[in-house]
Amino acid sequence: MKKLINDPQRYVDEALEGMCLAFPGYRKSGRVVSRAAGPAKGKVGVVTGGGFGHLPVFAGYVGTGMLSSCAVGEVFAGPPVEVCGQAIRAGDGGAGVVCVLGNYGGDRMSFAQACEDFEDDGGKTATVIVADDVASASSAERAKRRGVAGMIFAFKTAGAAADGGASIDEVSRIASHTADRTRSIGVALSPCLIPGAAAPGFTVDEGQMELGMGIHGEPGVERRTIASADDVASALVQRLLADRGPSGGKVAVLVNSLGATPLEELLILYRAVDALLAKARIEIVQHYVGHYATSMEMAGASVSILDLDPEIERLLKEPTGCPFWPR
Amino acid sequence: MKKLINDPQRYVDEALEGMCLAFPGYRKSGRVVSRAAGPAKGKVGVVTGGGFGHLPVFAGYVGTGMLSSCAVGEVFAGPPVEVCGQAIRAGDGGAGVVCVLGNYGGDRMSFAQACEDFEDDGGKTATVIVADDVASASSAERAKRRGVAGMIFAFKTAGAAADGGASIDEVSRIASHTADRTRSIGVALSPCLIPGAAAPGFTVDEGQMELGMGIHGEPGVERRTIASADDVASALVQRLLADRGPSGGKVAVLVNSLGATPLEELLILYRAVDALLAKARIEIVQHYVGHYATSMEMAGASVSILDLDPEIERLLKEPTGCPFWPR
Repeated sequence: MKKLINDPQRYVDEALEGMCLAFPGYRKSGRVVSRAAGPAKGKVGVVTGGGFGHLPVFAGYVGTGMLSSCAVGEVFAGPPVEVCGQAIRAGDGGAGVVCVLGNYGGDRMSFAQACEDFEDDGGKTATVIVADDVASASSAERAKRRGVAGMIFAFKTAGAAADGGASIDEVSRIASHTADRTRSIGVALSPCLIPGAAAPGFTVDEGQMELGMGIHGEPGVERRTIASADDVASALVQRLLADRGPSGGKVAVLVNSLGATPLEELLILYRAVDALLAKARIEIVQHYVGHYATSMEMAGASVSILDLDPEIERLLKEPTGCPFWPR
Repeated sequence: MKKLINDPQRYVDEALEGMCLAFPGYRKSGRVVSRAAGPAKGKVGVVTGGGFGHLPVFAGYVGTGMLSSCAVGEVFAGPPVEVCGQAIRAGDGGAGVVCVLGNYGGDRMSFAQACEDFEDDGGKTATVIVADDVASASSAERAKRRGVAGMIFAFKTAGAAADGGASIDEVSRIASHTADRTRSIGVALSPCLIPGAAAPGFTVDEGQMELGMGIHGEPGVERRTIASADDVASALVQRLLADRGPSGGKVAVLVNSLGATPLEELLILYRAVDALLAKARIEIVQHYVGHYATSMEMAGASVSILDLDPEIERLLKEPTGCPFWPR
């Protein structure tokens, strides 16, 4: 695994600096990325944070109509309390802040402390946890599931509601509602390397793939011989529908590259997902295919399904200034 | 190199089918991708074509304000005359067609024949060749250079002009003018595998990188030990500026992943390119960083510089319905 980087110690900051130079809508202050134009005055802020190495997740989703600010940690390691506090303050437009977080213990604890501090100073906060990875815990233990690519749907609907003038309770309700209706599962083909590390923290053997592997290499649910794209799609969709309910309804679908898997393969996978959902009489209203939530150069893909209702559909379609959300 | 595919023989068609399902603005007919809404009536068509495996190049750039249609070949092999002819007819809105092609012998010959046939039937055509890869031939032999990522700039300006109502001569002039002002160079870190092939057609040794390697693995200008992102940026920008002229002016910059190289690394590379151009008193007006022209899962990146004038700048900024061109 060869990388185009400089000093591994400078990896996160240099990438964020490059992001602000290449996309002038972002501003970086320390390890906080926020909107260059500042928070929307009088509107609720939508804030997130997490480890680095998943671009565009998390910081890339800052932008008008989406996130207000983001706390950035080290590679695969959440931001400290102090940075979470800075992100909350950077995202506050005076009407309070909703923190929308992936379900990782460190991120949750740091943000909980930072929210408490912010409230002690008179601010208002609410927190919504996204736990969309159906492979990471059973339906009965849904609260233990990790947050993966499907997080971006809650970023989008919460951000659109907030910039539309919704109250903190409303934004929080919408983020929760979106998160509850989002399910994801991934398949990993090859690992990634933390810059500066001597070797990957996990492996996927030659000729093998791992269903349900987490975005930091957390163990999945099944390691098996690499199958055809159609078979992989079937295995993934089957698990999503077993959790969701087998048929009917309108959905948004995200077929996401974990990094190295190219667009050609995502499209072949999408084609199979589309056919499987059609067979289940599930209507795909919105489609997202590309690099939305990655693990650096990890090869593999994930499929997310969001059950739509008219409110979620409308908020997904609202325009945003975020460069990584499609038109 | 593990792939999420089905039958290698169906790779191209299944990916294109997936593209049309995931992005409803496209229509596929055989191996031609065109706008779902059909060509703009009474407007000049802008048509391209080439081998597959470079998405979003070529077919992804079909869309209002950009390409009218695209002839798609096999992986790394240009489309036959017949498909080029179908693409030309699909792109014609009655005012003639400008073919904007990368400088590859097969693509040029097939389109030349197809254009001749189309003119025999009373149609009008013009052809513009993009030869932006400064590593592939010297400045004195510019006409021998290959077309690489910088091709997309000519697609954009020609498409914007055409949909704005420009004549075939005007569109052709603008495409030529853009192509003449575009320079690119890449660096490859690892090869890619043609689906169904037993092994990659080329290699990049452990710890090595190859400056100037082509998007099909054509030999580059220098193989050396992998360097820091800053050193790589310096080597690339130096070669671009040696060809262009060392300082001054306004440019658009594209830092492009060849496939597996993740956004984090592109941003670190962009940061260095930005600093180098600032030092040369070259103003970056438009920035494009992401997966724009790939070679499936090849790792590496390319840097393209387009010298702007007011006309090109305006056309670059025109809106387009192409999902792979940023807002």
